[in-house]
Amino acid sequence: MTVLKRARDWNINIGTLPTGPLNKITDVKGVTVGHKTIRDGEIHTGVTSILPHQGNIFQEKVVAASHVLNGFGKTAGTIQIDELGTIETPILLTNTLSVGNVSASLIKYMLKDNPDIGRTTGTINPIVAECNDMHFNDIRQQVIHEEDVFTAIKDAKQDFPEGAVGAGTGMKCFGLKGGIGSASREIEVLNKTYTLGVLVLTNFGKLHDLIINGKNVGTKLEKMKVNDKIDNKDKGSVIIIVATDLPVSERQLERIIKRCGVGLSRTGSKMAHGSGDIVIGFSTAATIPHKRPKKLLTQTCIHEEEIDLAFHAIAEATEEAIINSMITAEKTVGRSGTTLHSLADYLSELDL
Amino acid sequence: MTVLKRARDWNINIGTLPTGPLNKITDVKGVTVGHKTIRDGEIHTGVTSILPHQGNIFQEKVVAASHVLNGFGKTAGTIQIDELGTIETPILLTNTLSVGNVSASLIKYMLKDNPDIGRTTGTINPIVAECNDMHFNDIRQQVIHEEDVFTAIKDAKQDFPEGAVGAGTGMKCFGLKGGIGSASREIEVLNKTYTLGVLVLTNFGKLHDLIINGKNVGTKLEKMKVNDKIDNKDKGSVIIIVATDLPVSERQLERIIKRCGVGLSRTGSKMAHGSGDIVIGFSTAATIPHKRPKKLLTQTCIHEEEIDLAFHAIAEATEEAIINSMITAEKTVGRSGTTLHSLADYLSELDL
Amino acid sequence: MTVLKRARDWNINIGTLPTGPLNKITDVKGVTVGHKTIRDGEIHTGVTSILPHQGNIFQEKVVAASHVLNGFGKTAGTIQIDELGTIETPILLTNTLSVGNVSASLIKYMLKDNPDIGRTTGTINPIVAECNDMHFNDIRQQVIHEEDVFTAIKDAKQDFPEGAVGAGTGMKCFGLKGGIGSASREIEVLNKTYTLGVLVLTNFGKLHDLIINGKNVGTKLEKMKVNDKIDNKDKGSVIIIVATDLPVSERQLERIIKRCGVGLSRTGSKMAHGSGDIVIGFSTAATIPHKRPKKLLTQTCIHEEEIDLAFHAIAEATEEAIINSMITAEKTVGRSGTTLHSLADYLSELDL
Amino acid sequence: MTVLKRARDWNINIGTLPTGPLNKITDVKGVTVGHKTIRDGEIHTGVTSILPHQGNIFQEKVVAASHVLNGFGKTAGTIQIDELGTIETPILLTNTLSVGNVSASLIKYMLKDNPDIGRTTGTINPIVAECNDMHFNDIRQQVIHEEDVFTAIKDAKQDFPEGAVGAGTGMKCFGLKGGIGSASREIEVLNKTYTLGVLVLTNFGKLHDLIINGKNVGTKLEKMKVNDKIDNKDKGSVIIIVATDLPVSERQLERIIKRCGVGLSRTGSKMAHGSGDIVIGFSTAATIPHKRPKKLLTQTCIHEEEIDLAFHAIAEATEEAIINSMITAEKTVGRSGTTLHSLADYLSELDL
Repeated sequence: MTVLKRARDWNINIGTLPTGPLNKITDVKGVTVGHKTIRDGEIHTGVTSILPHQGNIFQEKVVAASHVLNGFGKTAGTIQIDELGTIETPILLTNTLSVGNVSASLIKYMLKDNPDIGRTTGTINPIVAECNDMHFNDIRQQVIHEEDVFTAIKDAKQDFPEGAVGAGTGMKCFGLKGGIGSASREIEVLNKTYTLGVLVLTNFGKLHDLIINGKNVGTKLEKMKVNDKIDNKDKGSVIIIVATDLPVSERQLERIIKRCGVGLSRTGSKMAHGSGDIVIGFSTAATIPHKRPKKLLTQTCIHEEEIDLAFHAIAEATEEAIINSMITAEKTVGRSGTTLHSLADYLSELDL
Repeated sequence: MTVLKRARDWNINIGTLPTGPLNKITDVKGVTVGHKTIRDGEIHTGVTSILPHQGNIFQEKVVAASHVLNGFGKTAGTIQIDELGTIETPILLTNTLSVGNVSASLIKYMLKDNPDIGRTTGTINPIVAECNDMHFNDIRQQVIHEEDVFTAIKDAKQDFPEGAVGAGTGMKCFGLKGGIGSASREIEVLNKTYTLGVLVLTNFGKLHDLIINGKNVGTKLEKMKVNDKIDNKDKGSVIIIVATDLPVSERQLERIIKRCGVGLSRTGSKMAHGSGDIVIGFSTAATIPHKRPKKLLTQTCIHEEEIDLAFHAIAEATEEAIINSMITAEKTVGRSGTTLHSLADYLSELDL
Repeated sequence: MTVLKRARDWNINIGTLPTGPLNKITDVKGVTVGHKTIRDGEIHTGVTSILPHQGNIFQEKVVAASHVLNGFGKTAGTIQIDELGTIETPILLTNTLSVGNVSASLIKYMLKDNPDIGRTTGTINPIVAECNDMHFNDIRQQVIHEEDVFTAIKDAKQDFPEGAVGAGTGMKCFGLKGGIGSASREIEVLNKTYTLGVLVLTNFGKLHDLIINGKNVGTKLEKMKVNDKIDNKDKGSVIIIVATDLPVSERQLERIIKRCGVGLSRTGSKMAHGSGDIVIGFSTAATIPHKRPKKLLTQTCIHEEEIDLAFHAIAEATEEAIINSMITAEKTVGRSGTTLHSLADYLSELDL
Repeated sequence: MTVLKRARDWNINIGTLPTGPLNKITDVKGVTVGHKTIRDGEIHTGVTSILPHQGNIFQEKVVAASHVLNGFGKTAGTIQIDELGTIETPILLTNTLSVGNVSASLIKYMLKDNPDIGRTTGTINPIVAECNDMHFNDIRQQVIHEEDVFTAIKDAKQDFPEGAVGAGTGMKCFGLKGGIGSASREIEVLNKTYTLGVLVLTNFGKLHDLIINGKNVGTKLEKMKVNDKIDNKDKGSVIIIVATDLPVSERQLERIIKRCGVGLSRTGSKMAHGSGDIVIGFSTAATIPHKRPKKLLTQTCIHEEEIDLAFHAIAEATEEAIINSMITAEKTVGRSGTTLHSLADYLSELDL
């Protein structure tokens, strides 16, 4: 893949905590991310997969939590996350009208490796989140098929591309090209280093509101007339996926992922009405077996007084991941010739 | 359709409030229900549709609320119901592993009548709820297709069959045949009569626990050895759909539908761990336009002090709908020769 | 204390699971309950305390959860329970207009043993729940004082009286005398016996609706004209306190205490509008230290698939505790000569 | 009162929407605010009252909503707000250990004007929120008495002082003096002007994190060594009260007040663990009568598509109110000689 410059390559250094080696969600050991990008005439869309670990996720679930910042969205699977505190499939991202197809395909994918589902054990809860890429993609065609989903999952690896790829292909952010972005932070708790990683799918905001590292660059960019013509409303969404190896309970995890809203707010978002702003997080610190074991479970978790550093880390990583999603997204032409410019092409003029 | 005897035909009279003319959810004016039943070898499943009104539901939304009694379930669409307090599609019921396919098909159905979706307006939030019919149906095959969904919607009418039809085809309740059941109640508020209707998809409970109108008949039936061999665990779910023409806010509606848990409890349910017990309700008293009108909205609603009668009605109707779902479900043979008996065949011996 | 007959002494045997030795919440090891009863002219009220363990609860917190069945109530302390999953004071019950005074006194009580509060550590979250005893007590006088609270806490013991005592002094249930009731159940998980105990403060319901063990005795009692004249509305509340030594996370505990609604429903409650129906539960299986330890916490908990028995137990114990609260509450004369009869005085005529 | 300079007097202009005439919560017609400040030796604390309107609030309730940003707090009254969507008393703010006393006094205040409470109608739900002023005030003394509460209510007026007054007397914010701050915004909906006002009680944050209008001034101030010695932890809280005359349902109102988190985040808060960050909002657009009327209620509210401007307004007003709370709080000496500096004394050096 072409290595695109990211926020830090432009000397935009958000926050004070150290990043992980890749500064991506995959700095959390075991986590991988894959994409399937679909471009074909009026079609500009795709699927992105996030795998919490490389084993059988249904058999070895991970502790999880969801948090709805603004619920004008169609994410599938959160009722069960909230009840049981676990996820049991990869997390997939796609466009709004494809959540159904992608869910059905994800189920099919899981059935292959788990012959007991629907036979000797129960069913499965597919996790699929979405943003609406209608301005850039002919979303009404519902083009995502089984093989696209399988490809996105198979493609999962540690060092994955960002920007206008996978589910991010058709997304628009602050009137510029949006898409997939990621970042990570390392924190020390009781003399051990843990990682918190964030992956975002950005499709929200008006150019006017864009803030980078505290500076309101949106108004400057507006004067440069870089935004697309369809930027009359803040109608999109943002999906935020959080991974960590910090040992936390699902309650603690929900507290942590709630702070994604802090990072989001600092980029200029007001969590607009038309936006489905939804966070899903998981911890890989331990797995929860699907099969009832013969003894009680033992969960290790941090004392509540240790949690502030994680709040800090997640706020920083979310802010940076959003900026990364924009900087790595190259200028592209979408449905009906709509052009979305890249923030990267204007950074040198912005005096950050 | 063959008219099957229902609870009241067996002299089982639950509660004290009067029923509507049909004693079904469709006593609420404008509401219709349709089914597509699929039986083919190992396949015993289907789709049921509930239409809140006969107009364009996307353009004229209805006030709605959801309530999770137990969240081990995969119902789609509740995040947006909770945020916006409306539904904008028919409600569909099906089996657990088909929620994705049915959502995709419901979207396609809505796109046909709404050319503005994904073009000049936003997307759409399909509402699809489910129970797991794996013991009776080869659920792994994910057999529900677009035409099945369209058929279930087209089939919608006021006087609809109950029992082992539509989404109820493969369901099991208290170790006997379950499926679709319905009931309604009329209440008077400020000298006007309003209707509350319930439709249930029943797939929960152990025979041992079954209570009919206060009598623990489960233990009696156990001695008659009527239950299936797979009744070792309480692993199913129940979906409860509530319709009313009572003018209520979404908050008031949520309070009302929460009381479905009272009726459910009175049938012997303990809302078991493995069960997705989910309620979705809507009021047809007014519609909310999709398009922003040129003036403020005016919503009429009851004063909070009038709400108790609605609580009463919904508890009664839920209890009766569950019993109706069992009495109207005839003995059937499912996947791998599994036989589920009908409660109706034992009622005369039960001294109720 | 006079030992009053309870449900089982009247051969009312609710459910199938075994009870603990006392069949009270205090069967959970370490839990104690105390009362301060205040009767003086128009005053008929009091305070009841539940102590999760006999150590310093602020320093050694217990895992806790709250659940609101109906939120027309003024219980103090649940915001922090929901955020942090612990309680750090005894739980106190009293009348509605005394929650403030009792909270202030409970804080004062805690300050005595914890000189670090408000100095070197933070503050404290008092847990105080309430029902409205206005029909029986001159509630406007707000008569509960510091010494009453201290007495209720000091009085805490394992074998405590039920009925018209402590916070239960002025309560009315189903048009008869209500008050404090308790019950417990034992369950076996992985070859070890655990206890779930319930204590209720009952102040809800109309006589007409009363169900005992599945039998609608309310209509019978109505004909006997035993109810008070003020029984025109279902305006009260019920507070349900759950204790267990089962090792559970706060999420699991919330799932368990939600099933108190099942037991409540089976007594005839519809969780009426005017009722504050609130559950608070805690597990004594482990304590969470206030002070940040030098290593990670280790929490033991059951696998989710073991939870159904706890659901069962809590539903049974809640139902029995409510009936116990009525049977043990003797006929009393309250404010303005209001007389509330005792269920016990009619049981022999009821053919249960 | 001495008129203190506020943010705009220092040319700190947050956001783009116009402010109301006073730029305070009391720009919402009918709303008034009062204080009782208590300074006496080691005591530095107080009470602040917010009155939604000047009539009998119990008889004429206002639509209300609450939102918990971080629940490490002891605010009283939110369970009933969430259930019924109204408030029926003034809102009082005080220190953490005085919530009980202030609740009891607020009840007494309400009883005076409402002889039917506890006699012919039910009880009352006092709303009391708090922050912990222990570093500045001898909070263990629980010094707030009935007359202080009555004084704070009686003092309520449209043009009220900010800074180290009332509940704000002992508060600390970002290591500097905090307290009461306010701001307002006007928005136009369907050609009519509406006002959204915010009042904050600030007691959170570390100096290092302080951001003013996008600029991280905290690090600069740190170098000037202006912070107090006790600023080792971010342990405080922030209470945010929102008033508006915009006609909204309680659901819409909750959506709006959730965006206070956006403004809060932009000041540098990460909603730290030890903080009770709680928002309570009300709309004065209509009142809900306590007594059941003889006809249905009619509620006017905005169409959901009109809500974004309100999100915008509340984010801006919250951010400005927080900065105002600091700028108007003069340098003060508290318990044990603790000195808290005023942001105002350093603003000229900060180049904003």
